Amino acid sequence: MNGTSITPPAAPPNQVYLGTFIYPQRHDALAYLHNTAVYVCGATGKIVAVEPNADRTHGMDETFTRLGWSAAETRILDITPHPVKFFFPGFVDTHIHASQYPNAGIFGKSTLLDWLNTYTFPLEASLSRQQADGIAKAKRIYTRCVRRTLAHGTTCAAYFATRDVTTTNLLADICLVAGQRALVGRVCMDEARTCPDWYRDESAEESVAATEAVAAYITRELDPEGHWVRPIVTPRFAPSCSKSAMVGLAQVAQRDGLFVQTHVSENQGEIELVRELFPHEFGGGSYVGVYDAFGLLHSRTILAHAVHLSEAEVRTVASRGAGVSHCPCSNSAITSGAARVRWLLDRGVRVGLGTDMSGGYSPSVLEAARQAILVSRHVAMGISDKDGPGRAEEKERAKLSVEEVLWLATGGGASLVGLGETMGRFEVGMEWDAQLVGLGGVDVLGEGAKGEDYGDVDVFGWESWEDVVAKWLYNGDDRNTKKVWIRGRLVHERQ
Amino acid sequence: MNGTSITPPAAPPNQVYLGTFIYPQRHDALAYLHNTAVYVCGATGKIVAVEPNADRTHGMDETFTRLGWSAAETRILDITPHPVKFFFPGFVDTHIHASQYPNAGIFGKSTLLDWLNTYTFPLEASLSRQQADGIAKAKRIYTRCVRRTLAHGTTCAAYFATRDVTTTNLLADICLVAGQRALVGRVCMDEARTCPDWYRDESAEESVAATEAVAAYITRELDPEGHWVRPIVTPRFAPSCSKSAMVGLAQVAQRDGLFVQTHVSENQGEIELVRELFPHEFGGGSYVGVYDAFGLLHSRTILAHAVHLSEAEVRTVASRGAGVSHCPCSNSAITSGAARVRWLLDRGVRVGLGTDMSGGYSPSVLEAARQAILVSRHVAMGISDKDGPGRAEEKERAKLSVEEVLWLATGGGASLVGLGETMGRFEVGMEWDAQLVGLGGVDVLGEGAKGEDYGDVDVFGWESWEDVVAKWLYNGDDRNTKKVWIRGRLVHERQ
Repeated sequence: MNGTSITPPAAPPNQVYLGTFIYPQRHDALAYLHNTAVYVCGATGKIVAVEPNADRTHGMDETFTRLGWSAAETRILDITPHPVKFFFPGFVDTHIHASQYPNAGIFGKSTLLDWLNTYTFPLEASLSRQQADGIAKAKRIYTRCVRRTLAHGTTCAAYFATRDVTTTNLLADICLVAGQRALVGRVCMDEARTCPDWYRDESAEESVAATEAVAAYITRELDPEGHWVRPIVTPRFAPSCSKSAMVGLAQVAQRDGLFVQTHVSENQGEIELVRELFPHEFGGGSYVGVYDAFGLLHSRTILAHAVHLSEAEVRTVASRGAGVSHCPCSNSAITSGAARVRWLLDRGVRVGLGTDMSGGYSPSVLEAARQAILVSRHVAMGISDKDGPGRAEEKERAKLSVEEVLWLATGGGASLVGLGETMGRFEVGMEWDAQLVGLGGVDVLGEGAKGEDYGDVDVFGWESWEDVVAKWLYNGDDRNTKKVWIRGRLVHERQ
Repeated sequence: MNGTSITPPAAPPNQVYLGTFIYPQRHDALAYLHNTAVYVCGATGKIVAVEPNADRTHGMDETFTRLGWSAAETRILDITPHPVKFFFPGFVDTHIHASQYPNAGIFGKSTLLDWLNTYTFPLEASLSRQQADGIAKAKRIYTRCVRRTLAHGTTCAAYFATRDVTTTNLLADICLVAGQRALVGRVCMDEARTCPDWYRDESAEESVAATEAVAAYITRELDPEGHWVRPIVTPRFAPSCSKSAMVGLAQVAQRDGLFVQTHVSENQGEIELVRELFPHEFGGGSYVGVYDAFGLLHSRTILAHAVHLSEAEVRTVASRGAGVSHCPCSNSAITSGAARVRWLLDRGVRVGLGTDMSGGYSPSVLEAARQAILVSRHVAMGISDKDGPGRAEEKERAKLSVEEVLWLATGGGASLVGLGETMGRFEVGMEWDAQLVGLGGVDVLGEGAKGEDYGDVDVFGWESWEDVVAKWLYNGDDRNTKKVWIRGRLVHERQ
C-alpha cells in the first residue's frame, strides 16, 4: 500500500447541533433531549457542551464565550424546523465479513458448514493478490461494503477480511479514507483436517506472521494512534485453527494488547466438530473451553453467535469478561438457532449486535436490531408458561424491548470494541459519532412527504416520541439515515 | 358516497412488454423467460400472446398481424437495455387491516388480546362517521395505506376495515380509484362478553345488516362486475361474535356467494377464550370447529394465522377447502407462535401470505415472504433431528425456499382470493397484474448506480438469475418496485 496518500477525513471546524437528541442512556432506557444544543470540538471530535433549552436565539452566546469559540467560525446544524428529525448515536456492527458482501442474501437452504464450503470460501479465496484481478475485486467489494454500511449508520465495525494480507490491508485503507472506525481482521485458518487445500494457511507460523504483518501495517504506518482503524486478531473459529496457531495468536494479542474476534457455538454440527477435534485436555470438550484453554478468552475478545452455550460455558465467558456479538439475521437465515440474549445479559455477559453479513443477509444494524426483537420472541415462544409461574415470568422477560435492542446496537456494541466511554451517548467527553434520522410525515390528504425520500415510516403527528422511535425501529431503513458523522467528521450524506 | 364520480383507471391502449419475465410456475419453481415479448390487450387487461426470442426488431410484426394490432397504436416497454430488470407478478396480501396502518410498528411487548384493547380498538373506533373528523381521518389513513401497499407491489389485498359502514365504503372507493384489486370487509363484532362497549355492534342483526349494506354498495353501485373491488364477509374472530351473528353472516355469504375472512388459532390465550365461550355443541371445543359449526368454513374462506391448529383441525380446514393466510411478521412480533407452513401444505391446505398490518409491522408482502423463510427456519429449529431419521428429514423439509415463499406471495395468495386463474403467472389468458423490478449494479470501482435509487440490493454481475432473485427477496424493498400494473393499467410508478 502507498500509505502516504491514505489519510482520514480532515478535521472540520467546531460545530453546534440543535434539535432533538435520542440515545440509549442505559441498557433499557432511552434519553430524549429536546430543544438541546450539542457542541462538538472540530479538532478532537469530542462533545464539549450539552445545553438544554437552547435555540439559535437563546443561550448560545454564553456557551460560545465559555468555550472561547467564535460564532462566525462555527458550523451550526439546526434540525428543529423539521417535524420528525432527531440525532441518534451511530451503530456498531460487532461482527461482519466484508469479503462476503457480494453473497448477501445467497444461501439457499444451507447450514453453517456446507454454506462455508459452497458460498463463502470460494469468494474469500478470490480476493487475493495471487489471483488475477484479486486486488481490483477486493477494492470493488470493500469499497461498496464500507459505503453501504456507512449509509446504514454503522460508525464502527469489527470486520473479518480474508487470509490475504495485501487485501486485508486494503480494507483497512478504505475504512480510514472513508472515516469509518474499524477493527480489521486477517482471517487465520491453518487446520488441514477441516480447511480446503485451496484456502488455508500453510502453517501455524503463517497464521501468526500474517496477523503480525497486518497489525504492523495498521499500527505503524496507517493509523498509529488507532483513532480510526485497529488490527484485530482473528482465528476464524476453533475447527479451522491448529492448536499451535491458537497459542501463537493468543500470544500476539496478549503481547500487543490487541482485540480478538472469533465464532463460537453457532450450530450443532460445528459444536460436534469441535468436540471431535479437541480432546479433553484442550478445554474439556467445551467449545468456550477450547478458546479459554488457548488463552483467547479475555475482556478484549468478541465471540460471535454463542447460540448454544451451556450454563458452564456462559459462566466462563462472563468471568473472563469476553463479549458476545448477537447475530439474529444470520442465526435465523442459516438455521443456526435462537440465541438467548436475556439469558446472556442476566449472567453478566456484555452483548452487542452483528450483521454477520453474509451469513446474515443485511448490511444494516437496524435490521439486526429488528430481528433481535423477533428472535427474542421466538426464544419466548420456546418457553412453556405451563411449567409454573417462574416459567411464565421467564417467558415474558425473554422478550427484548425496542429500547434494549437500540442499546445493543450502540452502547452495547461500543463496549465490545472497547469504545464504551467514547461513543454511544450524547454526553460531554464522548465523541460525536452520530446519525441524523429523518422520518416522513403524512399530510391531511394522506399524501407523503414531497421531494426527499423518507422510506417506509409514516408519522401521522399524534404519536409519542416513544412510538416514533418504535416506528423507525420496525420500518426504518437507510433512507432515514440522512447524515452520518464519526469523530465529528461528516462521512455520509444522503442525496 | 357519491358513486358517480368514483371510477377505476381508464383502459390503456394495447401493450407489449419486452425483456425478462420471472414468475412462480408452480409452488416450488420459478419460470425464467428471457428475451420474451408479452402482449397485453388494453381493453381486457389480459395477456393475449407470449412470444419467446423476441426483440424490437425481430418477431413482433407477425404477432401484430395475427392479433390484428397496429404497431403505431401499441405502447411498447422494452427493459432489455437495463442489466437487472425483470417483470414479476404482483403480490397478493391475503390479510391486512387498513384501519390499523398508523400503528405499524407500535406494540411494545403486548400479545394479541391486550394489543387489541390497547392499540387497535381505539384507533379503529375513531374512523367513524359518528366521530368528529372520523371520515377525514379514515380518508387520510386509507389513502396512505393503499398508496403504500401499491408502492410495495401489492396488486390485490383482502382488507379488514372497521365496524363503520360509511368509512368501509370509503376504503372501497379509494381502492377502486387507485386501481387496486381489493376485498373489503366491514368488521363484525357484537359479543358483549368480549368487545368493549364503545366499539361493538349493538346486535347480531346490526352485524348482518351492516355487512349487507357494504356488500350492496360495492356490488350494486361501485363495481357491479367485481373486477376491482368485492365485499368480503368479516366476522372479526369467534370470540368477538355472537352465535346469531355467525349464523347470519354465514347465510349472507352463502346466499350471495361472498368470500369470508376471519382469524383462527393465532395465540394460546385466544384459543382458551374460544374454548370458554363456545360449548361443545358449537364446534366441540375446537376453534376451527366453531367456524365449521356455523357454516363459515368453505372454499371461499380465508383464515388468518392458523398457528396452533391440531391435526383434526387441519383436516377439517383441508376438507372444507378453506385457505390459510400465513402472517409471519405478525406472529413473531406479537409472540403468537411459528406457523407450520410445510405441515399445512402437506395436508392439502392452500396457503397465501398476509402482512397482517398492524399486528405485522410492515406493509410489504416481500417482507412477509422474507419473514416466512425465517419463521420456517425457526419451525425447523424446533424439530429435534435426534429423534430419528424421519425427524431429520422433517426438519429439513420444514424450511421454505425462496421459490416457495414467492409463490405464496403471488399464486398462493391469488388462489385464496379466487383469482388463481386470473393473476400470478405470465401466461395467455391471465391478466396483466405485474411489477417491474429493478436492481442496482456495482461498477468496477465499487460505486453504485447513479441517478435512480435501487435500494439495498447490489448486483456485481457474476450472479446467476436464481441468485439475483434471492438477493431481491432478502434485501429488496419498494425502491426496487419501479412500476406496478393491475389489469393492464399502470397504477404506480416510482419517481
